[in-house]
Amino acid sequence: MNELVECKTFSFELQNCDGAARAGRIKTRNGEIQTPIFMPVGTLGTVKSMTPEELVRFNTQIILGNTYHLYIRPGLDVIEAHGGLHKMMNWDKPILTDSGGFQVFSLKDLRKIEEDGVTFQDHIDGSKHFFSPEKVIEIQEVLGSDIMMVFDECPPHDAPMDYLQKSIDRTTRWEERCLKARTRDDCALFGIIQGATDPALRRQHAQTLRSFDFDGFAIGGLSVGEDAPSMYSTVEATTPEMPSDKPRYLMGVGKPENLIENIARGVDMFDCVLPSRNGRNGQCLTHSGVVNIRNAQHRLSLDPIDADCNCYACTHYTRSYIRHLFKSKEILAARLCTWHNLAYYLKLMESARESILENRFAAFRKSFYDKRSQAVPML
Amino acid sequence: MNELVECKTFSFELQNCDGAARAGRIKTRNGEIQTPIFMPVGTLGTVKSMTPEELVRFNTQIILGNTYHLYIRPGLDVIEAHGGLHKMMNWDKPILTDSGGFQVFSLKDLRKIEEDGVTFQDHIDGSKHFFSPEKVIEIQEVLGSDIMMVFDECPPHDAPMDYLQKSIDRTTRWEERCLKARTRDDCALFGIIQGATDPALRRQHAQTLRSFDFDGFAIGGLSVGEDAPSMYSTVEATTPEMPSDKPRYLMGVGKPENLIENIARGVDMFDCVLPSRNGRNGQCLTHSGVVNIRNAQHRLSLDPIDADCNCYACTHYTRSYIRHLFKSKEILAARLCTWHNLAYYLKLMESARESILENRFAAFRKSFYDKRSQAVPML
Repeated sequence: MNELVECKTFSFELQNCDGAARAGRIKTRNGEIQTPIFMPVGTLGTVKSMTPEELVRFNTQIILGNTYHLYIRPGLDVIEAHGGLHKMMNWDKPILTDSGGFQVFSLKDLRKIEEDGVTFQDHIDGSKHFFSPEKVIEIQEVLGSDIMMVFDECPPHDAPMDYLQKSIDRTTRWEERCLKARTRDDCALFGIIQGATDPALRRQHAQTLRSFDFDGFAIGGLSVGEDAPSMYSTVEATTPEMPSDKPRYLMGVGKPENLIENIARGVDMFDCVLPSRNGRNGQCLTHSGVVNIRNAQHRLSLDPIDADCNCYACTHYTRSYIRHLFKSKEILAARLCTWHNLAYYLKLMESARESILENRFAAFRKSFYDKRSQAVPML
Repeated sequence: MNELVECKTFSFELQNCDGAARAGRIKTRNGEIQTPIFMPVGTLGTVKSMTPEELVRFNTQIILGNTYHLYIRPGLDVIEAHGGLHKMMNWDKPILTDSGGFQVFSLKDLRKIEEDGVTFQDHIDGSKHFFSPEKVIEIQEVLGSDIMMVFDECPPHDAPMDYLQKSIDRTTRWEERCLKARTRDDCALFGIIQGATDPALRRQHAQTLRSFDFDGFAIGGLSVGEDAPSMYSTVEATTPEMPSDKPRYLMGVGKPENLIENIARGVDMFDCVLPSRNGRNGQCLTHSGVVNIRNAQHRLSLDPIDADCNCYACTHYTRSYIRHLFKSKEILAARLCTWHNLAYYLKLMESARESILENRFAAFRKSFYDKRSQAVPML
């Protein structure tokens, strides 16, 4: 493995464990990330409705970009002309990019999987494209990603066992090819563990991959329709098999309680469109639970979205006003609720981290549920 | 007229005249306005896509709210619960509100005009409402407007002469009733001069109104479909008949060149949805003319929207990136182009003002057209 390029700008320091929960610090060429961390999703080179400066105001430390989407629009030549994704979108902190695998495999009837890679037609004008492990690394290096993801197959969580096994084996071969395809030594590369909701498959894939020279490891293929207990038991089976000295990233997760529960199971990093997408629809996530700001009950409410939140939206505007903005289809409505939701997620991660560093994560986890007056789910 | 309430918090100081062009200073209970000034339009209690803090970054000094729209949505009880429009929308600088006349008269088949006022059905659910001079003053006082506008009829610019004369006479009676209806002494009230594009009618109405105790005077009923030379000649006939010691406001105008030309004819204040509406559609107004940012020619352009502009959009983003945002229907696209367009308008007013204070408005006006490589229109 001597000829492989290694990332010289990436490191992870595990600062404390409180039970299985971990607090750590990731270094990248574009700055530090304190874990556990939530990564707002910037699919097309923008976290929808937000500016980068706004993201920084609530301590966003890393955002996610989507390789498939950026490859289709605006196209690699445009991003290359800007000198990479960071410069194009005016974001100078870390960016993690997915490999496009998830999106490509979502194009069910428009793609063909072979050992070499996947041929697919895009969702914009149906043009044909080919993604292989080598190709997605090339793309992510052009994007200038701080953390690249390997090209993997994300099979349906209810796929038959023989398909799952075949798919995982091919994904393993693809992951090896990704490692070999790397040319930049300032872009980290994470492996991805698959195995649907089968604990044995997950353990096996984690054990296979742990000897690979990745900078971190992700759990892929969850949050794709399975129920929460299945997600939790799958993660619980997987994390003990993952290297403890590398960051652990649970892809596409999730609701606030999913974050808390998976931190409890040893996960360090999360991303999800939920806070931004739901924010644009007027669904606010608060310390006391979900607030649907469009509801008539808020018509005259002078309360903020979340009385326990100190974000811009909560310190400057009432529920009544924000409801009015939604009823009037004003852009500021989407901005304010996205702002609050993301700020709430980042604050939740900050509080979790503090509690882990101070060995009081169990109490923090309990208080999270107490405030919401919801039962703590079974471990 | 002794029993009339007068505004104690409003004053206007004419600082310099350069030809007919004027530089001045308006004081209101919520701060000063330096004229000539452009007022961004915040129809429903938000300047579309912008926060108040952003507006201040490019020196917005006063915004406009729409009485009709705010009365329908969110409704007066909501605004009253907040303690007025300023507090509801988090804007602590001056607000001018129109009287709703223009909107009500736009509801052609849904309204009935009588001496007492206008009965109309709203555009949301067809509910019946009645606006009278007394009612619109009452509404604007609840809004807490710094500058209220009288209730006037805005007849079509091609209405027959006998209708125009009747309409103007009724508007005059309505304006008198507005003066009498006023109860707050911290909300200024502007009269409105009508008369379509007929210079004699305009002069006559201006002469009638100049003895009324208004805090300022507006020219209404222009920018409603007439050509630019008609607009200019109408303003030119009207401003000499307006009090020189009160602010002059040309309602609903306009393109950058309309602002320059009407400043040259003695106007101090403007409002228009053009910069914000066109910004949301990707039409940018720049020192060198109109830039349609969606055009394919900008696909790889690393230039800012306007190289002569120092706004946030122009100092942080390329045409290429903003074009990508538009093609992808990203909210940030609308934000950045609205931001630039409004910043450009405010900067244009600032530059015009400086040139008037330094008695070089003619040179400024020439340079405005030189940069655009367009012929200076005839006076």
